[in-house]
Amino acid sequence: MARISDFQKAHGRRPRVVVVGAGFGGLMAAKRLRRAPVDVIIVDKRNYHLFQPLLYQVATADLSPADVAWPIRGIFSKQRNASVLLAKVTGVDTQAKRVFTDTAGAVDYDFLILATGSQHSYFGKDAWAPFAPGLKRIIDATEVRKRILVAFERAEVAGHPDDQRRNLNFVIVGGGPTGVEMAGAIAELAHKALAADFRNINPKGARIILIEAGDRLLSAFPERLSAYAKRTLEKLGVEVMIGQPVQDVSDAGVIVDGEPLPSATVIWAAGVAASPVARWLGVDTDPSGRVAVGQDLGVAGLDGVFVIGDAALVNAWHGRPVPGIAPAAKQAGRHVARTIAARIGVGRDPGPFRYRHMGNLATIGRHSAVIDFGRLRLTGWLAWWLWGIAHIYFLIGVRAPVIVAAQWFWSYLTFKKGARLITGLAPLYQTPDQKPLERTEDDTTRRAG
Amino acid sequence: MARISDFQKAHGRRPRVVVVGAGFGGLMAAKRLRRAPVDVIIVDKRNYHLFQPLLYQVATADLSPADVAWPIRGIFSKQRNASVLLAKVTGVDTQAKRVFTDTAGAVDYDFLILATGSQHSYFGKDAWAPFAPGLKRIIDATEVRKRILVAFERAEVAGHPDDQRRNLNFVIVGGGPTGVEMAGAIAELAHKALAADFRNINPKGARIILIEAGDRLLSAFPERLSAYAKRTLEKLGVEVMIGQPVQDVSDAGVIVDGEPLPSATVIWAAGVAASPVARWLGVDTDPSGRVAVGQDLGVAGLDGVFVIGDAALVNAWHGRPVPGIAPAAKQAGRHVARTIAARIGVGRDPGPFRYRHMGNLATIGRHSAVIDFGRLRLTGWLAWWLWGIAHIYFLIGVRAPVIVAAQWFWSYLTFKKGARLITGLAPLYQTPDQKPLERTEDDTTRRAG
Repeated sequence: MARISDFQKAHGRRPRVVVVGAGFGGLMAAKRLRRAPVDVIIVDKRNYHLFQPLLYQVATADLSPADVAWPIRGIFSKQRNASVLLAKVTGVDTQAKRVFTDTAGAVDYDFLILATGSQHSYFGKDAWAPFAPGLKRIIDATEVRKRILVAFERAEVAGHPDDQRRNLNFVIVGGGPTGVEMAGAIAELAHKALAADFRNINPKGARIILIEAGDRLLSAFPERLSAYAKRTLEKLGVEVMIGQPVQDVSDAGVIVDGEPLPSATVIWAAGVAASPVARWLGVDTDPSGRVAVGQDLGVAGLDGVFVIGDAALVNAWHGRPVPGIAPAAKQAGRHVARTIAARIGVGRDPGPFRYRHMGNLATIGRHSAVIDFGRLRLTGWLAWWLWGIAHIYFLIGVRAPVIVAAQWFWSYLTFKKGARLITGLAPLYQTPDQKPLERTEDDTTRRAG
Repeated sequence: MARISDFQKAHGRRPRVVVVGAGFGGLMAAKRLRRAPVDVIIVDKRNYHLFQPLLYQVATADLSPADVAWPIRGIFSKQRNASVLLAKVTGVDTQAKRVFTDTAGAVDYDFLILATGSQHSYFGKDAWAPFAPGLKRIIDATEVRKRILVAFERAEVAGHPDDQRRNLNFVIVGGGPTGVEMAGAIAELAHKALAADFRNINPKGARIILIEAGDRLLSAFPERLSAYAKRTLEKLGVEVMIGQPVQDVSDAGVIVDGEPLPSATVIWAAGVAASPVARWLGVDTDPSGRVAVGQDLGVAGLDGVFVIGDAALVNAWHGRPVPGIAPAAKQAGRHVARTIAARIGVGRDPGPFRYRHMGNLATIGRHSAVIDFGRLRLTGWLAWWLWGIAHIYFLIGVRAPVIVAAQWFWSYLTFKKGARLITGLAPLYQTPDQKPLERTEDDTTRRAG
C-alpha cells in the first residue's frame, strides 16, 4: 500500500483508527491495518484478548485463565502503527468524532470500529443473574469453577440428605454449543476426575441436567447432529430436558415444567445480548441489542463508524443475518480494514461484505464432537480430534498453543484436573445445617474395618 | 507396620490424626501415615497445596496460579486412610481433644498436628499492609501481579511526569530470598518482557529498588554469596539499598533515610509471623509468634498435640532454631508421623528430632542463582540450572512439573509473559491527573513521520 494516503494529502496528518474491543473482530481489523498509513488505537477495558471458545474449559478446571487469554500489548508489540489503551469506553460523540473513556479522557478518531461483542441476557429476568452466572468473561469462568467445586465440598459435609442432593445437582440452562460443552465437561469432572476424591459422597452420583427451551439441542446444526449430541450426552450421564423453558431461578435451584428442581449450581448458557454500542451511538437496535449496519459494515448517517462482530446485525449471509461466532467476526474485521484502506486511497474497495460460512463445531466431552461443514458432517472421535486441532490452530498467541496442547494431552491421559483451584477471599460456603465430624459408633466401625 | 495398633486394642477403634494445614509439613506428615492403622483428616481453609517457593513467579507473570498449586483432594485421592476437610479452624479444645471449624462443626482427634505456616508481619505497622502486599497466598501473588501491570498502564497514560515516575518506581522491602527473587524478576519483566509493549513510556526506564534494613542481602547465606547477589542484581538494573530500614509506607510510596521515595508499587518481603496456633492452644510464643515445642515436636502439657513447620520453634539444629523453610517442615512432618506410629505401638520411636540442613538456594533473574550447600557454594548459570532442577524435582504433583518445565523453557526462550493478566472486577485505576488522548500538533507530527 502507498505510504502517503489521500487522507494525509488532504489533512496533513495520518488518519487515526480507533478500535474498541480486542475480541476476534477488533483484533483482526487492527492487525489487517498494520501496513496501512494509519495510526491504530486499540481500546479495551481488559488487558487481554480472550479466546472465548475455550472458556468453558476454565470453568471446568481443565485450563487456567492464562491458557485462554493473551495480553493485548504482547499481540501488538511489534506493530509499530498500533498502540493499546487500557480503558473503558463511556460514550461516543459521533459529531466531534471522539470516544470518551474512564481513565484516559477523550480519544479522537477519524474511523471508529466498534467490536464490543456480547454479554449475557436473562431475557429481562436480571434477578436471576446472581444465581446463574454465564460464561463470557474470565471472572465468570472462575466463578463457575468455584461454584462447581464448592458444591462438591458442601455435599461432602452436608448434614441433611436434601442439602447433599441439592449440592450434587448441576443445572445448565441452554442447549447451544456452550451448554452442550459445559454439560459434557461437568459430567466428566464429576464422574471421572473427582470420582476418588471424596469420602462421604460419591461424585459419580451427581446429576447433570441440561435444560433447553427449544425443541432440540444445537439448533444451528442439522437435526441429525442434534440427535447425536443428545445421545452422546446421555451416555456421559447427562439428563437432557428438551422443550422446557426455565420458569424461575433462585438460590434454591430452578423451576421447570412447574416442578422445583433443587440445585446449588445453575449455569446460564441461554441468552446473549449485544454490548452498549447502540446507547453510545444513539441508534436503534434489534431485539437482541444489535446495531443494524450496511453492506460496508458502517452505521448509516454516522461518518466513519463501523460495527462488527456480535454487536452488529448485518444480513450478509445470502440475505440472512451473519451468526455471532468467531469466524464471522474475523471476516468482518478483515473487511472493515480493507474498506478503510480504500477510503483513504491506498487500496481497492472490497465491495459489500459477504459472509462465508465455514461450519459449526461443538465438542461433547473428551471423546466426541459434532462438526457441520455443510456437505461434510462428522461425529465421534474423529470430529473431536478435528475440533481440537482446529482450536489449537486458531489460537492467536504463539506460546499458548504449545501449553494448551500439552495440558490437554496430559489431562486427556490422566483425568487429573490441575486447575481445580478455589481462589478468592470470600468465605467459601455457609451451610445452614452442618454435620459435625464427631466420632460416632458407625463411623468408627466403618473406618476400623 | 502392624495393622492392629495397641491403641486399637485399648480403645476398640483406630486413632484419628487431625492435620491442620496442607503445606509442606502437614502434607508430609499425612503422607507418611498412609500405611499406619490410623484415620487421617487433613483440614485446610483452601482446597490446594501451595508451592510457595515459586509463588513470586506468579506475581511476576511467569506462571499461572494453577502451576504452583495442587488440589489437596487430588494428592490424597488414593490414600484410603485419609480424608480432606475444606474448613477454617477457629479454635482447639485440648482437654476434650477437638478442633472447631467454621463450616464442619467440631472434629475430634487423638493426635493433632498443627502445620499452619506463617503469614506476613509488618512489625506492628499493620497500617502499611494495604500499600505493601506480601507474598504468602495466591491472592497476594495475583494482587502484586495486578499492581505491577497496572502501574505500567497508569504510567502510559499519566498526565504529569511525577505521576509517571511514581508509577515506574517499584520498591521491594526486604532482602531475603523472596525480595531478591522478586527484584530480579521485576527487573527482567520491565527491562525485557515489556520493553516493546508501550508507546508513551519506555519500561526500561523503570526503577526497581530493593531495600534491606540489615547490613547485607540474604543474611542466611555466607557473605561472599550476599555480595555476589548484590552485584548480579545491580547488573540487572536493580538499585540495592543496604542498612536502610523503611520508615513509612503509604499510597505515596515509602520513606527511607528520611527521604520520600515515591512509588505506586511497594512489595513486602520483610517479615513473617506464625499463624494463630498459640492463641488456639492458649500457650506463649516467641517474638515471631512461634510455639516452642519439645524434641518430639510436641507441646509440653498438651497430650497428643504437635506443632511443625514455620509455626514451631524448636532448637534442633545443633542447638539453634530450625529455619522456616520447606525442607525443614518436611523433615518435621516425617518425624511426627514416625512418633505417632511409635506411640500407638506400630513402629520404633525415632528419638529426638534432629534437623539436617541441606542448603540454601535463591535465584537472581533467569541467568543466575546462589546456592549454599555448606561445603559447596555455587553461583552463576550452573547454580541457576541446579536451582531449576531442584524445584522441578521437589514439585509434588505429577502433572505440574511437566507444565512448569515447558512454561519455563518457553518463557526462557521467548521472554514473552503469557500469564500477564489483570483480572478481577474492581476498576483498574483512578488517576487524578489524566492526559487526554486528543490530537495535538506534536502527536500528529511524531506519528506522521
